[in-house]
Amino acid sequence: MGDYRKLWESLQMDLEKHDALCAVLPELYGSVYLSQKDRAEAMNYFNFVISEVHGLRIEELNNHRQKGGKVVGTFCVYVPDEILNALGVIGVGLCGGSQFWIEDGEKVLPRNLCPLIKAFVGAKISATCPYFQSCDLLVGETTCDGKKKAYEILAEYAPTYVMELPQMKREKDIKDWEAEIKRFINEIENLTGNKLTYENLKNSIKLINKKRRALKRLYELRKNTPSPISGLDALLVSQIAFYDDIERFTENVEKLCDELEKKISILKANRKKRLMVTGTPMAIPNWKLHHIIENLDAQIVVEETCTGTRYFENEVSEDGETIDDLIRNIAERYMKINCACFTPNEGRVEDIIRLAEEYKVDGVVYYNLSFCQPYSVEYKRVEKALKDKNIPLILIETDYSTEDVGQIKTRIEAFLEMI
Amino acid sequence: MGDYRKLWESLQMDLEKHDALCAVLPELYGSVYLSQKDRAEAMNYFNFVISEVHGLRIEELNNHRQKGGKVVGTFCVYVPDEILNALGVIGVGLCGGSQFWIEDGEKVLPRNLCPLIKAFVGAKISATCPYFQSCDLLVGETTCDGKKKAYEILAEYAPTYVMELPQMKREKDIKDWEAEIKRFINEIENLTGNKLTYENLKNSIKLINKKRRALKRLYELRKNTPSPISGLDALLVSQIAFYDDIERFTENVEKLCDELEKKISILKANRKKRLMVTGTPMAIPNWKLHHIIENLDAQIVVEETCTGTRYFENEVSEDGETIDDLIRNIAERYMKINCACFTPNEGRVEDIIRLAEEYKVDGVVYYNLSFCQPYSVEYKRVEKALKDKNIPLILIETDYSTEDVGQIKTRIEAFLEMI
Ligand code: SF4
Ligand code: SF4
Ligand code: SF4
Ligand code: SF4
Repeated sequence: MGDYRKLWESLQMDLEKHDALCAVLPELYGSVYLSQKDRAEAMNYFNFVISEVHGLRIEELNNHRQKGGKVVGTFCVYVPDEILNALGVIGVGLCGGSQFWIEDGEKVLPRNLCPLIKAFVGAKISATCPYFQSCDLLVGETTCDGKKKAYEILAEYAPTYVMELPQMKREKDIKDWEAEIKRFINEIENLTGNKLTYENLKNSIKLINKKRRALKRLYELRKNTPSPISGLDALLVSQIAFYDDIERFTENVEKLCDELEKKISILKANRKKRLMVTGTPMAIPNWKLHHIIENLDAQIVVEETCTGTRYFENEVSEDGETIDDLIRNIAERYMKINCACFTPNEGRVEDIIRLAEEYKVDGVVYYNLSFCQPYSVEYKRVEKALKDKNIPLILIETDYSTEDVGQIKTRIEAFLEMI
Repeated sequence: MGDYRKLWESLQMDLEKHDALCAVLPELYGSVYLSQKDRAEAMNYFNFVISEVHGLRIEELNNHRQKGGKVVGTFCVYVPDEILNALGVIGVGLCGGSQFWIEDGEKVLPRNLCPLIKAFVGAKISATCPYFQSCDLLVGETTCDGKKKAYEILAEYAPTYVMELPQMKREKDIKDWEAEIKRFINEIENLTGNKLTYENLKNSIKLINKKRRALKRLYELRKNTPSPISGLDALLVSQIAFYDDIERFTENVEKLCDELEKKISILKANRKKRLMVTGTPMAIPNWKLHHIIENLDAQIVVEETCTGTRYFENEVSEDGETIDDLIRNIAERYMKINCACFTPNEGRVEDIIRLAEEYKVDGVVYYNLSFCQPYSVEYKRVEKALKDKNIPLILIETDYSTEDVGQIKTRIEAFLEMI
């Protein structure tokens, strides 16, 4: 890593505390990632991105801002990247995946809250996340109770704008979302001084569709038995999608896919169980579940999560004569994301069953962050549907601490023996 | 109690389990309520209502249904009673306040959920609540995550309709709520075969305004030092408001107020601390906190909850030439309720401060049902605002079990000594 202390200082970071954070990550990454065998060469790009996670990319954000550009932080895959990109904004996903921030989060939030929320709030109030510090605006949404209310607290620390996400998926709600996207456009136009045009929006849609397509290609390759890429590596790629430069990222995912494609013919069969993970998102560096599972005789081949299929499935239609058509296309694409925050959310159950078949999984791990109520209440419904289809299922409810690692390992082992 | 077994049987109730429930309530009521000293004579009506809670009122609902009328169950003070009443429907509030139902609720819901939700779901799936059993339709709303998702489960047991409540309070959201109320009218018209008219809606608005005014009068009397009515009794009246006959209830509240008004002049001063309770609702028979507090040297003089001021504050304007005007008035009145499910929810903080002054309270008890995230996250904001105003505040997070009664008592005692 280069010397970024001046840069961090200029971002009003708590350098001392940040040093403590920086001391943990490389070791964790080394033991979880670099210890893997037979990784693709092309993963080196992603290794590099992680090694520079608080460095080079932050410098890029800084350069962008020096030139008058804006950086906007988001917390949900419902906030449309196409709008940000079209208006010259760099969007960064700010969900927090580290136990490091929990303590600070709990200073202003109740303990009985999802760790992802406590972590991102802790990251902001401790001034140890250079991404947060680089943001000109934070954009929240009315998804789950925890986030909805946490944005009120974030707003005391940084400019925050909240999008009202519908709670249901009737035709009326798609229209509401479209209107909400228009209000969002207005907000971002005011922030940047730029104007949304048919041209820049269409280009942006194309660019991001390409990114989604690259990820889709990567996931398609995982359908092979055995998968040419570990679940851990695939998860990392998805996580990096949230903050890396879009074009460079897409290029590198395609390169990775090229390599994996060639690899497939020489892969030897193994007895590893093929698993799907479904549930709540996993933000960097939350590699806990994947690490536990892939150290056993199993491979994760698909994630039905927002750091998985929900991120890239469905493209925004590029058809449309007017800017309004394109905005409508965006609203429609986003409303296809099946998050448990909606009621009802039948589509998710259908997705899980479809993906289980497509990826030929032996079992499904329902991953639930502690105190995430939308997903934990929805569990029963998924359980019932998978039982009807004879697809084995296990529920893992956990947070970012390492206390329960042994117990999760034991439970997954028993599950693998059973299926 | 008369013999209602035939009636309960006709409602497909689990009679054996219901017997167990019926065995608990009278004893609890006796020890909490009937043991109070110097109660108003007029409280006898409310004693009677409780003694017949699963009897006479259920018979009334039954008679109404025999004559072709409908009964609709609700779970939130946002569902407009005016519409139900105007269309000849008896509305009943179904929030569950008893530990008795928790075990059954946890069969289909995660344990880390608010007891109110677990209790009402448990009440339905155990078939031990005659109110649930009397409903032709359940009406939910997209308020908190727990309820929003629990309705999906309830829908497997009974016809359920969900209203989409906005998550914010911009002008646009009031319009959305108005449109949602119109969809609700359509639904209830279909259910009943009745038609909403300017006449029946206006009458219904007047009727319910009268009920709200009676409750307001009761609360006004509590502003006296000392209050002529215990917090326990006032809470009971509020709780009964959710399911009693509207006219009879209003009449009896007025009678109670007449008596209390006379009582005021002969009340002797005492040293009891005056407390406000703010936070989550208390459904029958959740008298836990009030019972603990009023057995100490304190009196609860106001509840900023949905079983308190939020239920009756603000009337629906009776002005308007058309049915649409009246519906708009309803939407506006309801959107003034300051529930923590909204973001932001500045109005609630203002309400608490205003009520603290109006009721001359010595301190505020923030009552938070376990795992209720909207209210627990909002606590920090309330804490800050009250600190600025030098109003003492204590947070009590609890459920329906009796395990923590001793601990809460100790904490409240210490609080009372401090203020
Ligand atoms: S799980 Fe739901 S709230 Fe969370 S990022 Fe995904 S869509 Fe957004
Ligand atoms: S994991 Fe659940 S509780 Fe946490 S932010 Fe996502 S939806 Fe909210
Ligand atoms: S607290 Fe909120 S969700 Fe609950 S009854 Fe009141 S308004 Fe409805
Ligand atoms: S108390 Fe809180 S969690 Fe429980 S139903 Fe009301 S808003 Fe929801």
